[in-house]
Amino acid sequence: MKLNIALLAGDGIGPEVIEQAVKVSDAVAKKFNHEINWRPALTGAAAIDAVGEPYPDETHEICASSDAVLFGAIGHPRFDNDPSAKVRPEQGLLKMRKKLGLFANVRPTFTFPSLLDKSPLKRERIEGTDLVFLRELTGGIYFGEKGRREEGEIAYDNCVYTRAEVQRLAKKGFELAMTRSKKLCCVDKANVLETSRLWRETVQAMEKDYPEVEVSYEFVDAVAMRLVQWPNSYDVLITENLFGDILTDEASVISGSMGLMPSASLGSKIGLFEPIHGSYPQATGLNIANPMATVLSAAMMFENFGLHTEGKAIREAVNKALNEGIVTEDLADGGKSYGTSEVGDWLANNI
Amino acid sequence: MKLNIALLAGDGIGPEVIEQAVKVSDAVAKKFNHEINWRPALTGAAAIDAVGEPYPDETHEICASSDAVLFGAIGHPRFDNDPSAKVRPEQGLLKMRKKLGLFANVRPTFTFPSLLDKSPLKRERIEGTDLVFLRELTGGIYFGEKGRREEGEIAYDNCVYTRAEVQRLAKKGFELAMTRSKKLCCVDKANVLETSRLWRETVQAMEKDYPEVEVSYEFVDAVAMRLVQWPNSYDVLITENLFGDILTDEASVISGSMGLMPSASLGSKIGLFEPIHGSYPQATGLNIANPMATVLSAAMMFENFGLHTEGKAIREAVNKALNEGIVTEDLADGGKSYGTSEVGDWLANNI
Ligand SMILES: CC(C)[C@H](C(=O)O)[C@@H](O)C(=O)O
Ligand SMILES: CC(C)[C@H](C(=O)O)[C@@H](O)C(=O)O
Repeated sequence: MKLNIALLAGDGIGPEVIEQAVKVSDAVAKKFNHEINWRPALTGAAAIDAVGEPYPDETHEICASSDAVLFGAIGHPRFDNDPSAKVRPEQGLLKMRKKLGLFANVRPTFTFPSLLDKSPLKRERIEGTDLVFLRELTGGIYFGEKGRREEGEIAYDNCVYTRAEVQRLAKKGFELAMTRSKKLCCVDKANVLETSRLWRETVQAMEKDYPEVEVSYEFVDAVAMRLVQWPNSYDVLITENLFGDILTDEASVISGSMGLMPSASLGSKIGLFEPIHGSYPQATGLNIANPMATVLSAAMMFENFGLHTEGKAIREAVNKALNEGIVTEDLADGGKSYGTSEVGDWLANNI
Repeated sequence: MKLNIALLAGDGIGPEVIEQAVKVSDAVAKKFNHEINWRPALTGAAAIDAVGEPYPDETHEICASSDAVLFGAIGHPRFDNDPSAKVRPEQGLLKMRKKLGLFANVRPTFTFPSLLDKSPLKRERIEGTDLVFLRELTGGIYFGEKGRREEGEIAYDNCVYTRAEVQRLAKKGFELAMTRSKKLCCVDKANVLETSRLWRETVQAMEKDYPEVEVSYEFVDAVAMRLVQWPNSYDVLITENLFGDILTDEASVISGSMGLMPSASLGSKIGLFEPIHGSYPQATGLNIANPMATVLSAAMMFENFGLHTEGKAIREAVNKALNEGIVTEDLADGGKSYGTSEVGDWLANNI
């Protein structure tokens, strides 16, 4: 296969971890006879500095004309705690999601047996956890009309959903559930919100098309609890944008393997693949960041092209590295640790 | 003191646990020479059945003319999974909060040494956890305009906050922080929402009035993570209605003592006190529900009247019961357990 991949390294440790994912992907391409054309582009604070915009038009054109986007991380402390900042890196992220039509954020949470003890949860609570959130990513309160009235004294944010938006996300959820243990949980707040009632009634109406899928409906507050109590009771969860933001982050820390969790954002055509961790500014340039989440995001990318053997080769290399202790200091438990690029090299050599 | 207390037992196990809180409060009143006039009133599914309304006007009049409200639980499974139901018990709750002006929901999460092992989290993660959420309870997306457009195909919910609403909640937060370890965390999503930017700028402007309080600002998704990782790193947290709904429930399960967590909803004049657990329909009438959260809610009620010795007497009785194993089956670890009313009797006798 010939693949054009837009490469958005972003801020902080983004460039370092992306470099390792490129190495590993190139090794995969070599072994399985693919050709990858990497197309670097600016985003985040790096793009603001260079051209005054977190998601410049040139970057969008590169993404839109590629087969996929591999993304590092964005965000820089100098933009935090300044609610009035006019240009923020996050705006670039939101614009990118919207313009690329990335309406479904796929966020798996699974456990690595060798990392179970890193979890804040007791072992018996997380063992066997293997769930996936499908978070709606281009609608809801993130994109509704927002602003001020009465000379700034009143602020408002509008949450809006159309039935079609719910359907296309739910469809992906049902389809994913069919490939897994056929359990789907629709997370909403239908006892309070009208948008949630639209979600619930839309999903209820789709149940008949997937008779094998067992669908449950849970309130977002109840899920926030059960994720901590019995994460392994979930399989596929679908939810709206803001609930998904909160719950996927909550879920990410329960496994103990947060530094290893990949994600995909999918839409009609181009997928975007990125680690769930942030730009980790304190670690920038120190060659200590864990590249595995980004490398596993590349695995998701291959799998999304239907290249499952390629994806598996990456996952196996990561498992092997974990078992053999070829890890960055965050996973070294005070033992021997390796640098970001050494781990990348090792993984590339073990494809 | 002469106290008029509205008594809203509600649904499911509500009546059973309320009965124990009444016993214990009466014992306190006797010992410390107070007079409590209990004023029962209907609410929830029970009120819908009786008069077709979850928060009838008669009930409101009783609440509004009392010094406090002691509340059990509401909710009945026959109203769940029916997004189109016209009358729902939850509406009564929201109406009550609004009409009584209960804008600040106080939700402590603390640990009982004897219950630490009940937590899904590892002991070292939760030991010493003692945090309080102040959740805004009468504004935001819960109460903004909501509805449908385009023949039901589009749903919307409006989130609105005024600066004054933020100020009065934040003021309670600063004041509470002053009585504790002087740390305040403002939880928002200021990188995306305009209402959150109003929250953040309003709290920032109040910092100068409380120079001793150390204020931090964290995004709601980050807090959802850190609550699981390092709950004992928080002291007082303030947040808007929907974030508070999700995060307080998440926080409630980390301590392992969820069945024991009380709460208060405060406003200008009358406070409402209730356990955080729900109506637990499966346990209704079985005399197995744990009454301690409701009993501790009564302790918060006394404390809110300035009656701290009285509140302490209740807390000490509960601690003693826990130490001596006078507990319902949820806490008995397969050992000897007592019924709801036996625990209530024991606590009343040990005031
Ligand atoms: C940075 C922020 C706008 C973003 C979001 O809220 O979507 C982030 O938290 C995420 O989950 O990708
Ligand atoms: C029942 C529901 C409307 C309510 C809320 O969301 O406020 C409940 O979850 C709570 O937290 O008291």
